[in-house]
Amino acid sequence: MISLVSSALDLQQGRIDLSHGAGGRAMVQLIGQLFAPALHNEFLAQGDDGARLPLCHGRLVMATDAHVVSPLFFPGGDIGCLSVHGTINDVAVMGARPLYLTASFILEEGLPLSDLARVVESMAAASRAAGVPIVTGDTKVVQRGKADGIFITTTGVGVLRDGADVSGAYAQPGDVILVSGPLGDHGMAIMSVREGLSFDAPIVSDTAALHGLVSDVLDAAPGVHVLRDPTRGGLSATLNEIAHQSGVGVVLQEAQIPVRSAVAAACELLGLDPLDVANEGRLLVIVPAAQADAALSALRAHPLGREAARIGDVVADDRYFVQMHTRMGGQRMVDWLAAEALPRIC
Amino acid sequence: MISLVSSALDLQQGRIDLSHGAGGRAMVQLIGQLFAPALHNEFLAQGDDGARLPLCHGRLVMATDAHVVSPLFFPGGDIGCLSVHGTINDVAVMGARPLYLTASFILEEGLPLSDLARVVESMAAASRAAGVPIVTGDTKVVQRGKADGIFITTTGVGVLRDGADVSGAYAQPGDVILVSGPLGDHGMAIMSVREGLSFDAPIVSDTAALHGLVSDVLDAAPGVHVLRDPTRGGLSATLNEIAHQSGVGVVLQEAQIPVRSAVAAACELLGLDPLDVANEGRLLVIVPAAQADAALSALRAHPLGREAARIGDVVADDRYFVQMHTRMGGQRMVDWLAAEALPRIC
Ligand SMILES: Nc1ncnc2c1ncn2[C@@H]1O[C@H](COP(=O)(O)OP(=O)(O)OP(=O)(O)O)[C@@H](O)[C@H]1O
Ligand SMILES: Nc1ncnc2c1ncn2[C@@H]1O[C@H](COP(=O)(O)OP(=O)(O)OP(=O)(O)O)[C@@H](O)[C@H]1O
Ligand SMILES: [Mg+2]
Ligand SMILES: [Mg+2]
Ligand SMILES: [Mg+2]
Ligand SMILES: [Mg+2]
Ligand SMILES: [Mg+2]
Ligand SMILES: [Mg+2]
Repeated sequence: MISLVSSALDLQQGRIDLSHGAGGRAMVQLIGQLFAPALHNEFLAQGDDGARLPLCHGRLVMATDAHVVSPLFFPGGDIGCLSVHGTINDVAVMGARPLYLTASFILEEGLPLSDLARVVESMAAASRAAGVPIVTGDTKVVQRGKADGIFITTTGVGVLRDGADVSGAYAQPGDVILVSGPLGDHGMAIMSVREGLSFDAPIVSDTAALHGLVSDVLDAAPGVHVLRDPTRGGLSATLNEIAHQSGVGVVLQEAQIPVRSAVAAACELLGLDPLDVANEGRLLVIVPAAQADAALSALRAHPLGREAARIGDVVADDRYFVQMHTRMGGQRMVDWLAAEALPRIC
Repeated sequence: MISLVSSALDLQQGRIDLSHGAGGRAMVQLIGQLFAPALHNEFLAQGDDGARLPLCHGRLVMATDAHVVSPLFFPGGDIGCLSVHGTINDVAVMGARPLYLTASFILEEGLPLSDLARVVESMAAASRAAGVPIVTGDTKVVQRGKADGIFITTTGVGVLRDGADVSGAYAQPGDVILVSGPLGDHGMAIMSVREGLSFDAPIVSDTAALHGLVSDVLDAAPGVHVLRDPTRGGLSATLNEIAHQSGVGVVLQEAQIPVRSAVAAACELLGLDPLDVANEGRLLVIVPAAQADAALSALRAHPLGREAARIGDVVADDRYFVQMHTRMGGQRMVDWLAAEALPRIC
């Protein structure tokens, strides 16, 4: 970014105004003093209309997500790190190594610059920790009441790993279903803030970048059929989607599905099913039985997968049902989002 | 996209509600019945968390833009085609061939599905016409009053053309400055709708995909130093940016700068300078004098460059001033966005 503005932004007391999105000096100042220093890398520093990246050879993978989570800050994270993790995860679960991110900001007039700076620092930290730089960006401002603080869209590019061939369409009867940890933490962390619930141990979002975990799993179990991050709609939506894509059924074992007690309690209070609740740092793995142990060990050996569990099996079923053996010994259907919608969870 | 919803969306009377962003059946229905059929291509049809693309070899280029234009529909275009053109143009002016786009939607609860369908059809048509498919997407919904109809973020990936080496940092004294057509059409098309101005000939946005034009110019004048699309902040902001990036001055000839009479009249009425007003289908070219005629001929030979003109020169100036010889025979500074901000022009 060029520096042609001598005055300094007031990062303590200042607020976003419409001029910060107008393409003139104020925007250059905002980018040059707030975004560029935090997100710094050689590509972003080029300062042209986009980023010119190194030579790349392979099959590209792209994923994009808009992030509109409310509130912007929540236990365990904020919209900034969430927007980095979410897109890295979608690239990773395609079987690709995430290489680059872009970030587009829609800011509401009146937004405190201190909030924006916190969010951008959090993105920067997440991007550095993941080793995936934000190489180009965009900044738009809309009038007060025409957005809600900050919306961030991230897009990721990666290159498919050699031999990786995973898809929601590849589940087969006999495959084993694994998850990398307890379900529902992210969604219930958001909901407990919104609903003012408090627990002895506060519920903390699981937001995390999963590309390292994915890499370890694929190294240990190269025959993996399906990888997914069970985000909006939770495990229920993800498994129903896969069942339809692959033309199979699923049988879960409720007793095997890890759910923290605080999450279970909060869900009960709010009339939600933890299986319907969004996760932002959990990996779903569907793997041939012969490689299931190898995959589970690889998950458990990684800091993000210590509580990994085997939760069910893929079965032949031309109705594509997702069913569950309950803890009580019964059986029930696991439908899509039977509960009410949880808006703006990510 | 999988089809597990038997009921049909009501595209005439229906409206977006929060369930369309919740990751469950309603979202699958919206994507499957509205987005997927309109935007259809083999990559989008994969239906995984992102898109798996063909083998690619070269230096990647990425660009991203959020689009928040208001109103959504304007003479000559709408937010849909604008969001396709804008990102294609940023990839193209980096000297790259645009290959793929992603599209993330933030929708406001209550949005008429008929408006959404119009916008998506327009994106689809623009993407088809440009030969650049939208390979993956995302859909979020926020509550009424927390957004403004539709926001769309597009991200583009391209591959650098062989030998292309353009940047805002490469302008040199002696270079010639060209524009591909009249300035200010897009911004004044939006402003005249907003302000209720009417003219004998209505002002129509110049929104267009410039990658074909860029390709012709680079073929004819491979020594081009700088390419830019003068969007927010108009020609003034773009030239001031380049002057600072390259460490040069600019001298414009007002008499040579093409501005339509309706645009000039509207600008006068609103107290705006056409040089500060956004364009969405104009190309700025800075080229060594020896190749200036070749570049200008190539511009004029293309349907999008018929009214191309030579408008000024790059000069040595360690203050990085952009100056203009006026039609009256005087000289004035062309500063950044001296006029008030024009919010939500793109
Ligand atoms: N929020 C941001 N964080 C980091 N860099 C940014 C951000 N916003 C913009 N940039 C960078 O600033 C430069 C100029 O961005 P800008 O959006 O003005 O370019 P443009 O897309 O060509 O213009 P327009 O958005 O008007 O079409 C680019 O290099 C871009 O990567
Ligand atoms: N507006 C849209 N237009 C076209 N395709 C879309 C659109 N929104 C989503 N899709 C496609 O639908 C599929 C599922 O998208 P979805 O956003 O649910 O996945 P995800 O990003 O993994 O989940 P989340 O957004 O909850 O993190 C993807 O293949 C995506 O490309
Ligand atoms: Mg541009
Ligand atoms: Mg996602
Ligand atoms: Mg931009
Ligand atoms: Mg996903
Ligand atoms: Mg742009
Ligand atoms: Mg998504």
